[in-house]
Amino acid sequence: MKSQRDRSDLRAFFEPASVAVFGSLREVFGLGYGVIRNMLQFGYSGKIYPVSPYQNGDVLGFKAYSTVNDVTDPIEAAIVITPPPTVPGIVEQCAQKGVKAVIIVSENFAEAGGEGVKYQQQLVDIVHRTGIRIIGPNTVGLFNAANGFITNPYLIVQKKIRKGGIAYCSQSGYVGTAAQPLEDRAIPVSKMCDIGNKCDVDEADLLNYLADDPETKVVAMHLENAKDGRRFIDAARRVVVRKPLLILRPGRSEEAARAVASHTASLAGNEQVYDSAIKQVGAIRLDTWLDYWEVPKIFAYQRLPSGNRIAILTLTGGVAVLGVDVAVSAGLAIARFLPATADKLKRIYPRLSSNPVDLGPILSVSDNPFAVEEEVIALALNDANVDCAAVSIYAGFDDIVAPIVEMFDHLKERITKPMALWIYGMKLSAMDEMSRQLETRGLPTYFYLETAVKALGVAAAYARIRAGLEE
Amino acid sequence: MKSQRDRSDLRAFFEPASVAVFGSLREVFGLGYGVIRNMLQFGYSGKIYPVSPYQNGDVLGFKAYSTVNDVTDPIEAAIVITPPPTVPGIVEQCAQKGVKAVIIVSENFAEAGGEGVKYQQQLVDIVHRTGIRIIGPNTVGLFNAANGFITNPYLIVQKKIRKGGIAYCSQSGYVGTAAQPLEDRAIPVSKMCDIGNKCDVDEADLLNYLADDPETKVVAMHLENAKDGRRFIDAARRVVVRKPLLILRPGRSEEAARAVASHTASLAGNEQVYDSAIKQVGAIRLDTWLDYWEVPKIFAYQRLPSGNRIAILTLTGGVAVLGVDVAVSAGLAIARFLPATADKLKRIYPRLSSNPVDLGPILSVSDNPFAVEEEVIALALNDANVDCAAVSIYAGFDDIVAPIVEMFDHLKERITKPMALWIYGMKLSAMDEMSRQLETRGLPTYFYLETAVKALGVAAAYARIRAGLEE
Repeated sequence: MKSQRDRSDLRAFFEPASVAVFGSLREVFGLGYGVIRNMLQFGYSGKIYPVSPYQNGDVLGFKAYSTVNDVTDPIEAAIVITPPPTVPGIVEQCAQKGVKAVIIVSENFAEAGGEGVKYQQQLVDIVHRTGIRIIGPNTVGLFNAANGFITNPYLIVQKKIRKGGIAYCSQSGYVGTAAQPLEDRAIPVSKMCDIGNKCDVDEADLLNYLADDPETKVVAMHLENAKDGRRFIDAARRVVVRKPLLILRPGRSEEAARAVASHTASLAGNEQVYDSAIKQVGAIRLDTWLDYWEVPKIFAYQRLPSGNRIAILTLTGGVAVLGVDVAVSAGLAIARFLPATADKLKRIYPRLSSNPVDLGPILSVSDNPFAVEEEVIALALNDANVDCAAVSIYAGFDDIVAPIVEMFDHLKERITKPMALWIYGMKLSAMDEMSRQLETRGLPTYFYLETAVKALGVAAAYARIRAGLEE
Repeated sequence: MKSQRDRSDLRAFFEPASVAVFGSLREVFGLGYGVIRNMLQFGYSGKIYPVSPYQNGDVLGFKAYSTVNDVTDPIEAAIVITPPPTVPGIVEQCAQKGVKAVIIVSENFAEAGGEGVKYQQQLVDIVHRTGIRIIGPNTVGLFNAANGFITNPYLIVQKKIRKGGIAYCSQSGYVGTAAQPLEDRAIPVSKMCDIGNKCDVDEADLLNYLADDPETKVVAMHLENAKDGRRFIDAARRVVVRKPLLILRPGRSEEAARAVASHTASLAGNEQVYDSAIKQVGAIRLDTWLDYWEVPKIFAYQRLPSGNRIAILTLTGGVAVLGVDVAVSAGLAIARFLPATADKLKRIYPRLSSNPVDLGPILSVSDNPFAVEEEVIALALNDANVDCAAVSIYAGFDDIVAPIVEMFDHLKERITKPMALWIYGMKLSAMDEMSRQLETRGLPTYFYLETAVKALGVAAAYARIRAGLEE
């Protein structure tokens, strides 16, 4: 058995200098072809060796080989997308060739029962015997935004995914690059990894690796079950002392636990045991798919709040009240402005002095609404009683995008505390464009006030956990 | 005091044959000008009389008048967007002229304190003395999709809002047409109404009116406080026997209740009293802004489920499990397929026999995935043990939109039970286009599985309430 340190060295998976691709190389539709096309699309610049007994000549400019033994250069990683009966033999050949890391994308192993169980056991045996490492099988594998390395063989229409601080990890195929409009939304990603059936690399290995990964600022993990509770807890602790760990774990209901058992061929484990383990290690549990994708970016961009006191600035009092409810249930306190701040706000407009701040009445009568809005946001966030703010902005029409973005360019110079922006409006194109432009500037945007407030609540919760660890 | 029946006759507000507009008629930026522009944009074909002492000549093709007394024709409704001190006088003139309904968009009445309280009291006095009816003040007023009548004076970039069955009502300015990309998402609207400060027309009047409105199939109401608890309860009951009433009521936390008091100059009322009143009348409480906009459409399009047994069909097992958790907490039961259905599914693919159904493995190996998907969806929904289904569809790239839409065109012929579709994918343009096309065909679409499942849960809950009423 490898040492914990060795086990968590996943560099050969995420940063291979060379990779062999096993799978159909048929143009366009072959899955081996697909993965090479995707690697090129994302700018992977390592050496690529297509391998298939059925293909001669070049594939996308790379010479194809009948077997990996025909390649004379060393190969660091392999991607395998061939029928299950052929996979153990291929992995065995890879081990003999000196390949360190294999990602097995093929399905129909343990999760399918029958013969698949046998093939998966053969893979486990090869790992133990040879020391080769495996991610999968039954996975879309991984994506590394830093070097463009990707193992997903299906059509990816994204041309580019933004490099940034979020690592998304999962046990499910479509909780990956293909599951979200990452490019259109400019979500900042460091790495993504689906660990599939975990015949070797598991969530603990991945967490240990990401704990040390300098590009990852926050880890978002979709977890149905941990292979080894003790190792998972230790690895989660290692993450939490360095960066936030957010866990989406379904299975609160018995029905869901049964569904996990049926699709992963493994037990979901006891809900209460998981829930308390997650709390105990200082990870933060998320409840929804929406939160899994949207909450982490607050950590990718913004510093941690020094406390839990939130200011809520909206353009309508009614919506502010909704935000207050969410804030309270997310563990935030509604900040009370210092008298000096209240005075300054009152001078701008008599009814502006208390939190939540309803900017609607003043903006509708102001000759220069953007300057007023900027001033109010700066005053609120620079109040010593305020630790963070949810700010709503109106993307009502396309022409409003530029002045709003400019306003936030100014505000970035004036404010250091974390903000979450809630964009709403009547024109989708304006909402999307404003979101993209603000995200590119490092400001987390949300289309639902509840999510913006919840993200700040999670940030404050992690700040508290972190402070507790440092005491 | 008017009778309950008279009070709830709001036809003059929603269907006026003629309307006077009081407000600045300055081109482009004047708010009186704005509301006329918006009425024309949405195709309102009644007579329009711009009224302003500062304007001569025509406004957008309509002759302007200095006072309403100069108009010789009868006028049914008026929209007032002038400074508060001028408003009581204008409403008095309208009453003398025989105008039946006035929508006062101007702010700074009771909600602002001071002189505003006095002006609002004057409006109340005029209502009592003359019998004229008022919506507002401090409101964007209303929108009627059937005739294009709109009272919002601000820039509306939507060219058209889809006519359909949802009435949205609120006590807040931006819970209106301008708050959501209604056109881009093809959300089907019957009427929208912000009742503002409720100096006359209140939530009970509005509910009574909408209960009888044949175009409204579901009422979504954002409610902070009821003016008269007894009347509200009676009106809510009248709605619930005819159509679902969904209520978004913030104020679960004390902090939120305080915020309501501050922005509406009225008490939020006791949370527990409201919560039990909502349950008692058979209304269904919503918790978030997202649900307020997204849940109602399940009723606009689909028949009620006959029970609470849901089938969940996804393209990945991991996501299905998330759906199961939401279903259980939304009061749904996970359907068990009849043996005959399970057999047929098994014949299509061995691992398809149980619910939730993970379509991923079969679709990835099928030569005709759309035909297989269609067959599986039809089998699941036509099982006698299934009352409704959440179906996930993948909008990964633009070219997939057409075949998916075609598949649902076939399915609409084969299925009568309610479905909620969860659209996800990596390309925003494909997601948006697929959503629009399917909504136009009467299929409710969601971008989050949780919302799709929750909507079915709300539908099943209302079906149960309705069945209870009919017993």
